[in-house]
Amino acid sequence: MACGRRDWNLLFNPRSVAVIGASSTPGKVGMMLTSTLLSGGFKGEIYPVNPNAREVLGIKAYPNVKSIPEDVDLAVVTVPARLVVSAVRDCAEKGVSWCVIITAGFKEVGGEGEEMQEEIAMIAEESGLSVVGPNCMGVFSASSSLHALMAPLFPRKGGVSIVSQSGTVGMVVMDALSQRGSGIAKFVSSGNEAHLKLEDYLEFFADDPETRVVVSFIEGVKDGKRFMDVSRKITVKKPFVCIKAGRTGAGERAARSHTASLSGSMEIFKSVAKQTGITLASDTEELVDLALAFSLTSLPEGRRVGVVTGGGGWGVLAADACEEHGLSIPSLPQEVVDLISSRAPPYWSRGNPVDLVASINLDLYTWCCDVLLSEGCIDALIVENMAYDFSRALTQAYSKLGSGDGGERVVATMIRKLSEDAVALTRKHKKPILFVARDAMLLGELAKAGVPAYPSPARAARCLARMAEYKSYLEKAVGGLQPA
Amino acid sequence: MACGRRDWNLLFNPRSVAVIGASSTPGKVGMMLTSTLLSGGFKGEIYPVNPNAREVLGIKAYPNVKSIPEDVDLAVVTVPARLVVSAVRDCAEKGVSWCVIITAGFKEVGGEGEEMQEEIAMIAEESGLSVVGPNCMGVFSASSSLHALMAPLFPRKGGVSIVSQSGTVGMVVMDALSQRGSGIAKFVSSGNEAHLKLEDYLEFFADDPETRVVVSFIEGVKDGKRFMDVSRKITVKKPFVCIKAGRTGAGERAARSHTASLSGSMEIFKSVAKQTGITLASDTEELVDLALAFSLTSLPEGRRVGVVTGGGGWGVLAADACEEHGLSIPSLPQEVVDLISSRAPPYWSRGNPVDLVASINLDLYTWCCDVLLSEGCIDALIVENMAYDFSRALTQAYSKLGSGDGGERVVATMIRKLSEDAVALTRKHKKPILFVARDAMLLGELAKAGVPAYPSPARAARCLARMAEYKSYLEKAVGGLQPA
Repeated sequence: MACGRRDWNLLFNPRSVAVIGASSTPGKVGMMLTSTLLSGGFKGEIYPVNPNAREVLGIKAYPNVKSIPEDVDLAVVTVPARLVVSAVRDCAEKGVSWCVIITAGFKEVGGEGEEMQEEIAMIAEESGLSVVGPNCMGVFSASSSLHALMAPLFPRKGGVSIVSQSGTVGMVVMDALSQRGSGIAKFVSSGNEAHLKLEDYLEFFADDPETRVVVSFIEGVKDGKRFMDVSRKITVKKPFVCIKAGRTGAGERAARSHTASLSGSMEIFKSVAKQTGITLASDTEELVDLALAFSLTSLPEGRRVGVVTGGGGWGVLAADACEEHGLSIPSLPQEVVDLISSRAPPYWSRGNPVDLVASINLDLYTWCCDVLLSEGCIDALIVENMAYDFSRALTQAYSKLGSGDGGERVVATMIRKLSEDAVALTRKHKKPILFVARDAMLLGELAKAGVPAYPSPARAARCLARMAEYKSYLEKAVGGLQPA
Repeated sequence: MACGRRDWNLLFNPRSVAVIGASSTPGKVGMMLTSTLLSGGFKGEIYPVNPNAREVLGIKAYPNVKSIPEDVDLAVVTVPARLVVSAVRDCAEKGVSWCVIITAGFKEVGGEGEEMQEEIAMIAEESGLSVVGPNCMGVFSASSSLHALMAPLFPRKGGVSIVSQSGTVGMVVMDALSQRGSGIAKFVSSGNEAHLKLEDYLEFFADDPETRVVVSFIEGVKDGKRFMDVSRKITVKKPFVCIKAGRTGAGERAARSHTASLSGSMEIFKSVAKQTGITLASDTEELVDLALAFSLTSLPEGRRVGVVTGGGGWGVLAADACEEHGLSIPSLPQEVVDLISSRAPPYWSRGNPVDLVASINLDLYTWCCDVLLSEGCIDALIVENMAYDFSRALTQAYSKLGSGDGGERVVATMIRKLSEDAVALTRKHKKPILFVARDAMLLGELAKAGVPAYPSPARAARCLARMAEYKSYLEKAVGGLQPA
């Protein structure tokens, strides 16, 4: 095959996938991968490759990738490490375009593993075959329903693309985002990066129209200058959220044995992030929090945050967190206070945070949110409701009182109302609205509707602060254009 | 009634409870409170008080607390603010011991509300009646199954006692702890503290044998000197975890309108916490994380942390977080490396974190944990497994392949095995073992078994660091005795 520019479309929308090492034996990686690929509903051809099986999970198997009669766009390799080099060579000879190597035991273990990894890179360079991995968890692509993953995961489809130097962390982030209402466009577990590097995937995501937010877990960067260039290329168009691991001595030692990468100083990385508009998360929870908000809401025009709450203490925590993160909690114009007083109970807080003191008038919360968002006094809103798992508790209470079904109906009606109001507010206003809730049923409804929700005011505030920082970066970098 | 020392037993184990303002009308606070009390299974007498009803939720009602023919230990007041003072006076005249005033609209709204609150305090001082609130969410006591709460919540029973200056935050913490496997002994929402103050509840918890961990949400402290004395009294016996809200200008303004408290400087509070052995949480999630670990595990003897993981990146994040929080990730003695190598796959990390590279041999994880805990090279362990919601995904995969029930059985067996192993490890070793998992089914099993689990390595590491700090405090304060 010619050494031309690689065709990313054949990785993310392959017409055919070979699984080298496919198996029907439970517990084998080749079984898990094949069954995940099958159950994910991939529409192209699937060719199991296994010299000792005539079929795998009901599909005709081939002894070797070269014995497959048709073209193969993508091969996923799950055979033991010592068999990988020859499998890759077979792929090159067959003219396969992409190889995803799941198998571990290469540079991260040193010695012979390191030599084999170098051989893989050489074959790729010489043949034009593009290689993902080794030592990775695979690739997902929404557009072709491709679940070439080492473990089953069937995320919601959407606009977030992920490249992760840790397969597990990548899977955690993909799963958490999906469960919380944001969808995934593309996912790559980049593993040891024998051939294609983090920077390659990022560069592709920068221009990919299906990718609206880029997320990355980074242990180490091979080419710092190129990483900065690519980051700038992303951030002028779309948010780029990442977490840098291997920040400490202990973390760096762990990273070396994990993906054989050199982590580099955290101080340098922080400065790179600042210069290039990367939104840096401190841990996986913040990474997911941020990707959720970036993918589901607009950027705030400024740093003024309104808070509407039913619990005073919850409001105090929101105010603290906002101020600690460099946001402001503006006081409300007298006419707004008077307007809210016309409908709120007399003991409401008469200021921002708008504390409605556990009022059970659900319309009142929504109306207060609408007032704050309409009056031009805030740039973003935190709405706190259903702070604990109220609907479960209420259902329990009703059933203990012997009015089981009636209780469930009351709860379901209330949750539906809250969720519908949240969707309506979000549609009406261009400003970011982050919900704070811990009610499992409400969280499920909000996720289904694509409304971002957070388990504490501190987490919501931190998110708004990072969004405001990205907005400021954009204003300096490209004169304030909202990313497409 | 004589003005003697108050009898706390009559608050937490009352023989009879009157609900002043009880109602059968859905949406009314008096209805929610009565139904929660009833469905919570309180074993003593319940007397609804409502001049316009002959019965409430099927129980005979009285027009006035004074018309109840029997003694009343505890009265819960839910009538509108303007009727509260006379209700409290009735209670005093009747010889009621405790009054919990749920109703809002007192000092926090100023003016007449403030005057009414002062009158309540005066009645209490003069009569010997003890008053909780006003503007609070109520009281829970495990020993008498007393759920005198404004909203339904039926927590697991256990050893954590909570006093919260925010009802909502208190409910969130109680609910989250309960769902994650730790139980509650006593809960008080202290509201505006017209009469009894935060310090009073804390002093009672210090000596209460049912309370093994004290948790508090604090907006403001009325008597700083006494607060310090009481805190020291608690921390020599049991952990005291708290969150201080109203830390910023915005937070302080919000706190003033919430419970009319003056928050005071955060710097002062931090120094107080350091001097008195308080474990200070930065947000509600950390508060719950800490109370969970303190109530379910032992204190670490030192700061050396072992990590066992199936995902390398997850291990790198754990190592980073430990080191950032002042813990160490010691390297393993050669004989421990050799021992693990005798059973682990050849590409394991050969160090701490022990990365088993997505091995599906569940026994291997448990055995590695046991080796690390037995060999004396660590003081605490973080075990990372089921990083994402694997059992849901696996069940989905099986059902998509048309082997529905079989899949559920496989998953259930795997989760039961993981949970049983976790329990066995926890029982065998005196060292704290914190699990990191995001699999909903596994989390449910671990919570049921009382094994502490965390959603990310960063959260588990932060927790261990605070535990080690408390251990150091104890060593200085009382010569290293483990709290009872």
